[in-house]
Amino acid sequence: MGISQDRKGSSVALVVQKYGGSSVSDAERIRRVAERIVETKKAGNDVVVVVSAMGDTTDELLDLAKQVSPAPPVRELDMLLTAGERISNALVAMAIESLGAQARSYTGSQAGVITTGTHGNAKIIDVNPGRLRAALDEGQIVLVAGFQGVSQDTKDVTTLGRGGSDTTAVAVAAALNADVCEIYTDVDGIFTADPRIVPNARKLDTVSFEEMLEMAAAGAKVLMLRCVEYARRYDLPIHVRSSYTDKPGTLVTGSMEDIPMEDAILTGVAHDRGEAKVTVVGLPDVPGYAAQVFRACADADVNIDMVLQNISKVEDGKTDITFTCSRESGPGAVEKLTALQDEIGFTRVLYDDHIGKVSLIGAGMRSHPGVTATFCEALAKAGINIDLISTSEIRISVLIKDTELDRAVAALHEAFGLGGDEEAVVYAGTGR
Amino acid sequence: MGISQDRKGSSVALVVQKYGGSSVSDAERIRRVAERIVETKKAGNDVVVVVSAMGDTTDELLDLAKQVSPAPPVRELDMLLTAGERISNALVAMAIESLGAQARSYTGSQAGVITTGTHGNAKIIDVNPGRLRAALDEGQIVLVAGFQGVSQDTKDVTTLGRGGSDTTAVAVAAALNADVCEIYTDVDGIFTADPRIVPNARKLDTVSFEEMLEMAAAGAKVLMLRCVEYARRYDLPIHVRSSYTDKPGTLVTGSMEDIPMEDAILTGVAHDRGEAKVTVVGLPDVPGYAAQVFRACADADVNIDMVLQNISKVEDGKTDITFTCSRESGPGAVEKLTALQDEIGFTRVLYDDHIGKVSLIGAGMRSHPGVTATFCEALAKAGINIDLISTSEIRISVLIKDTELDRAVAALHEAFGLGGDEEAVVYAGTGR
Repeated sequence: MGISQDRKGSSVALVVQKYGGSSVSDAERIRRVAERIVETKKAGNDVVVVVSAMGDTTDELLDLAKQVSPAPPVRELDMLLTAGERISNALVAMAIESLGAQARSYTGSQAGVITTGTHGNAKIIDVNPGRLRAALDEGQIVLVAGFQGVSQDTKDVTTLGRGGSDTTAVAVAAALNADVCEIYTDVDGIFTADPRIVPNARKLDTVSFEEMLEMAAAGAKVLMLRCVEYARRYDLPIHVRSSYTDKPGTLVTGSMEDIPMEDAILTGVAHDRGEAKVTVVGLPDVPGYAAQVFRACADADVNIDMVLQNISKVEDGKTDITFTCSRESGPGAVEKLTALQDEIGFTRVLYDDHIGKVSLIGAGMRSHPGVTATFCEALAKAGINIDLISTSEIRISVLIKDTELDRAVAALHEAFGLGGDEEAVVYAGTGR
Repeated sequence: MGISQDRKGSSVALVVQKYGGSSVSDAERIRRVAERIVETKKAGNDVVVVVSAMGDTTDELLDLAKQVSPAPPVRELDMLLTAGERISNALVAMAIESLGAQARSYTGSQAGVITTGTHGNAKIIDVNPGRLRAALDEGQIVLVAGFQGVSQDTKDVTTLGRGGSDTTAVAVAAALNADVCEIYTDVDGIFTADPRIVPNARKLDTVSFEEMLEMAAAGAKVLMLRCVEYARRYDLPIHVRSSYTDKPGTLVTGSMEDIPMEDAILTGVAHDRGEAKVTVVGLPDVPGYAAQVFRACADADVNIDMVLQNISKVEDGKTDITFTCSRESGPGAVEKLTALQDEIGFTRVLYDDHIGKVSLIGAGMRSHPGVTATFCEALAKAGINIDLISTSEIRISVLIKDTELDRAVAALHEAFGLGGDEEAVVYAGTGR
């Protein structure tokens, strides 16, 4: 057909669409998704679709695994779970064909999604889109099973871990040089705050990759960090939109540097309930001790988020280090540190998972002085105590009590005038 | 390890085991199957296991397919259904590992099962067992998803149709030069008749390939025809046995020619409720007209079983042809023939699916005269009318009313003294 060499600028656009598990949770929803896909194709686009497993399939398969084995081996767990996307993709392909269009579904392996060998959390190394391209050139709508690939070394089936299907979609879109990757979800786009907490949260029309990265890192659930990182690396626009409406959603695209300084504004307020706080008390305040603490955490596979080292108490030459990590990894960090207590030589470890993190993100922070002051004043006015502060060039995050998190989000959203005039629409359910 | 080049005669035996869907229908049964597999491995064998989809999985997936599409495309149906074996194989592998042994599961494609491209009814062209052999040499228990393969030309996922998992097991066993292929099922082996009809039916210790082929063709459900054909071609012994007991079952092995004439006996009585009878009435009795009838059937993908051409009625130079085919394909045959009625020039087509077929099989038929006479006398004594007779060197089959089938089976079994002293044990459920 000749148009496949360089899509961008050609008359036919290549659109990659990703649908989450809640969008394909039953036959009725699958048929609705199929209609949208066929409409996109009929509008003159080439279409590649990535589908997650149906609704609760993954949980049901995990439950079966636990029934036959107390600690299912990871290779077989991947073999098991990938059946879920195989089922949903084949069903969507059938629904598309029943509407008169042609469709072919491919497993991650067939689609050329090559990954590392880390079962359960593999990273995409490369996508060889030869079969997909050939099918597109034949006029087929192409379906790719999300969340899965095949390991480069052993040719075993792998899964990509959390947010895997989004990453599949972005990686396939990048490999095919697609014009846009549409991520369909159960919200209308990226909001200035979670609409369930802030009723007048405003949907954003566009967000830069950098801002979206900070939002994702700060706990915004709509897009996973790794998927945004992938899209930024390949300069691939992501369109986050609702699978229940035809309204445009939020376009994640372009560098923050492209936004004229004068136009730069604040993007939104994100929050995270998934962190825990660990404090190592009475650490000798000499070089190398902090490194020992964080090496211990790394050995226990604990990712550190925020860090605070208290000012040394001169009288005893001891100091404290406080850090946050995910609640899942928190107990492991405490266990590892406790085991090394004598070796490192600290007094004790404190653990607190009744905390929450609230963050303000926006490129405008660079050019508008006083943001930090307004931030702290807003929380003070709401009577909320700040436990820990961490900042980047375009983000301020603070750690507070988890019970005060919703109030903090609302107060900051209000203080920075981020709200719109109308109430946001919130749908039930979440995707993988 | 050096022993992998020629297993036969070496100290380590290679055993292929196949478990049907009812043997792995829930976590409890999967654990029991895993125990049996690990025992076989611990006894010093190399073990390859082929597992069907769990219990009702296939029906549930088919039901989903019908909900999204009135006529699901065959390629996608294969993609969908093969998820079933992927799930069951991964679960059995997990259960094996929880018992301390090592296991790896492979899809049909990964196991090198190369097939034709006929989705839903593909034929195995070849098995490239390189990955399986390598895993065996590492001491792994190897699991292969049954019923599935990958097409030689398009590399699409295919399914093998009815009896597919048995065929996978035999084909993999042949490719690996296994010592035996054990087919686990819900009966104790091959019986002289269906124990649900004849309570004193006797389990056979051994059956020759030829006899088993005739039994399968005559309606015995335990082994599918294609699987026995495959085993005979590669001279691979099949051991049909129960997954609920440790008792030996029936060994299908060796040529009928190896049985000394004096020892040759009658094997058993088989029956088939799945046939329909088609009669083409008033066909011009000149050369080529019968060929036209059967060409029409072939074009409609109808397999012919028994055929009877009536003696020509001299006065009008017309004749009738009666044949049987599967009930599923019967309506298609009638439709096709009716469409060609004027072209072929017959009077009308009659259709009857209230029929049954009963057959007596045994190599001893060759050396014992009077078998046909005894056969017909037994049915006559039971007041059962014979509609059509067909014979081979080691089989007599007759078509009768379906309501008289059970009585016919019992009468023949009794007349030829095939019964044992004790009642056969019958289990519930059937495998795929």
